[in-house]
Amino acid sequence: CSSTTPITATLFPGDGIGPEIAESVKKVFTTAGVPIEWEEHYVGTEIDPRTQSFLTWESLESVRRNKVGLKGPMATPIGKGHRSLNLTLRKELNLYANVRPCYSLPGYKTRYDDVDLITIRENTEGEYSGLEHQVVRGVVESLKIITRQASLRVAEYAFLYAKTHGRERVSAIHKANIMQKTDGLFLKCCREVAEKYPEITYEEVVIDNCCMMLVKNPALFDVLVMPNLYGDIISDLCAGLVGGLGLTPSCNIGEDGVALAEAVHGSAPDIAGKNLANPTALLLSGVMMLRHLKLNEQAEQIHSAIINTIAEGKYRTADLGGSSTTTEFTKAICDHL
Amino acid sequence: CSSTTPITATLFPGDGIGPEIAESVKKVFTTAGVPIEWEEHYVGTEIDPRTQSFLTWESLESVRRNKVGLKGPMATPIGKGHRSLNLTLRKELNLYANVRPCYSLPGYKTRYDDVDLITIRENTEGEYSGLEHQVVRGVVESLKIITRQASLRVAEYAFLYAKTHGRERVSAIHKANIMQKTDGLFLKCCREVAEKYPEITYEEVVIDNCCMMLVKNPALFDVLVMPNLYGDIISDLCAGLVGGLGLTPSCNIGEDGVALAEAVHGSAPDIAGKNLANPTALLLSGVMMLRHLKLNEQAEQIHSAIINTIAEGKYRTADLGGSSTTTEFTKAICDHL
Ligand SMILES: CC(C)[C@H](C(=O)O)[C@@H](O)C(=O)O
Ligand SMILES: CC(C)[C@H](C(=O)O)[C@@H](O)C(=O)O
Repeated sequence: CSSTTPITATLFPGDGIGPEIAESVKKVFTTAGVPIEWEEHYVGTEIDPRTQSFLTWESLESVRRNKVGLKGPMATPIGKGHRSLNLTLRKELNLYANVRPCYSLPGYKTRYDDVDLITIRENTEGEYSGLEHQVVRGVVESLKIITRQASLRVAEYAFLYAKTHGRERVSAIHKANIMQKTDGLFLKCCREVAEKYPEITYEEVVIDNCCMMLVKNPALFDVLVMPNLYGDIISDLCAGLVGGLGLTPSCNIGEDGVALAEAVHGSAPDIAGKNLANPTALLLSGVMMLRHLKLNEQAEQIHSAIINTIAEGKYRTADLGGSSTTTEFTKAICDHL
Repeated sequence: CSSTTPITATLFPGDGIGPEIAESVKKVFTTAGVPIEWEEHYVGTEIDPRTQSFLTWESLESVRRNKVGLKGPMATPIGKGHRSLNLTLRKELNLYANVRPCYSLPGYKTRYDDVDLITIRENTEGEYSGLEHQVVRGVVESLKIITRQASLRVAEYAFLYAKTHGRERVSAIHKANIMQKTDGLFLKCCREVAEKYPEITYEEVVIDNCCMMLVKNPALFDVLVMPNLYGDIISDLCAGLVGGLGLTPSCNIGEDGVALAEAVHGSAPDIAGKNLANPTALLLSGVMMLRHLKLNEQAEQIHSAIINTIAEGKYRTADLGGSSTTTEFTKAICDHL
């Protein structure tokens, strides 16, 4: 029912429950009349029999060309001899900022009300350098790399995000009392950028203290920007406040306007293929993708349908205490559209 | 009223509110008839006019000789050109394990009930190596060091702790999906030790997931063991669950039975000298010290007096929503003895 020329977006359903929850997104988007054509690629921890590959050049090119995509979970095997595909995508596509909003879903009660936090995570370096080696037997080291370029880039993104989203405060999270040079450089870059945004309150909070404050009173924070590992940790903590990674979206931002939205929960192999998975995180990530594309009307429509379905409580998947299948929950959302 | 020969223990009151809360401990211990003689030394971020030093050899020797001590907060200035004194003590005294219990205080309500967690933190290496350098302009790196020796040592301590304290589960917290070599070695050591304790359930949990689970349901955990920085983060998170670092004790364990109990909250310079500080964390750390000395009767007596005073709610310091001074709160505890 829309006359817009369709936009092509890449879709990586991923491993485990990925294909089922990707189906759910496709269904909801079609029902809402979103003018998107999906270009679907398999990227995952099984070798694709058609390509004999975990990740093909064509899959990467698809995102580079379309500049927009949606990604399901990919399992990260511990010690399987190849890097996590999640990270490979972030590095190969130079997805330098990972935006992870956490907000309370009306009608889904947790210990915390009215949480509304945005974690912005540096996504390419830090503790994720992949540089590790054995110094002598029984002594290993890993390198955390912080660069001025990547720190400035993510700080710029965080402040611009705050400004364009009507947010008032940016907190840089660090451990510069211990890692004076690395986290010190990160802070220095944040301060430089903060000077250009006098209307936004800037503060620096040590990561341990930040975790304590988040747990005691999340309303103390607004937008949080930080190096890679801290972002990994804090975003999961924040997700926990509102119910877990099954409910929180994310979007990876790259150079030249590239955006790859991503559900950051696991691939849940135990329930894969059983029509039990909760597609909410991938759906909300899809909504972030729509907002990025300025398809605001459909974004808000779908967002409301998801929120209202969960709030109503009649159709919920097992992880939220309900007994609906993925398809029943998806249908309920479509009915709300 | 006790006929035991007194035990000599070192006391480092520390900076800021340190001296006031140390006074409180001395008062409570004396009232309870604890057979301890304090050997008090100034260690802190101001140069001691008598010794012209932040930290003297005599102070270190005092702990080495007495094998037991209590330490207040020491400020860690960011970028002041000398290392944090907290860390210096841990390194110089080879305090390899930091035990941080977090439990709900009856009568002090938070969002969480019945929290009962023990964080055991590797305390000498990891991200706290102090090895950092600039590679080229704008590119800095810091080294995380994990050794087999330190990992085995802290794992041994954690399992022995679990066993002797009737605990059922040890969770090793890591990020070995990213830092395969460093955190991988840590896990390998934990597994080796776990084999010797078949009666204790052993599991491995990725740090981001651990934070999410802790926030959703802390009862999922029991004893947690982990590398240095994760311990720093997780222990603050856990403290947040029960009300903050003002209420949680800690004890650093070294070789040859050395134990230095420590309040890990800040030195709160804003309220220093105003008789407003909450001595609970230092008092409870003192209780850990007494248990270490097997002065169990006095330990439990003092512990109950603290708990009951807080539970009663009549005398509470400002951070707990009351209006008592440090001395009033201390007196109330003594009255409960
Ligand atoms: C799966 C894992 C490699 C990944 C990470 O550590 O970044 C995940 O935890 C995330 O937050 O996206
Ligand atoms: C003050 C700081 C250096 C210290 C640390 O990082 O270990 C503190 O946070 C702690 O937890 O004892």
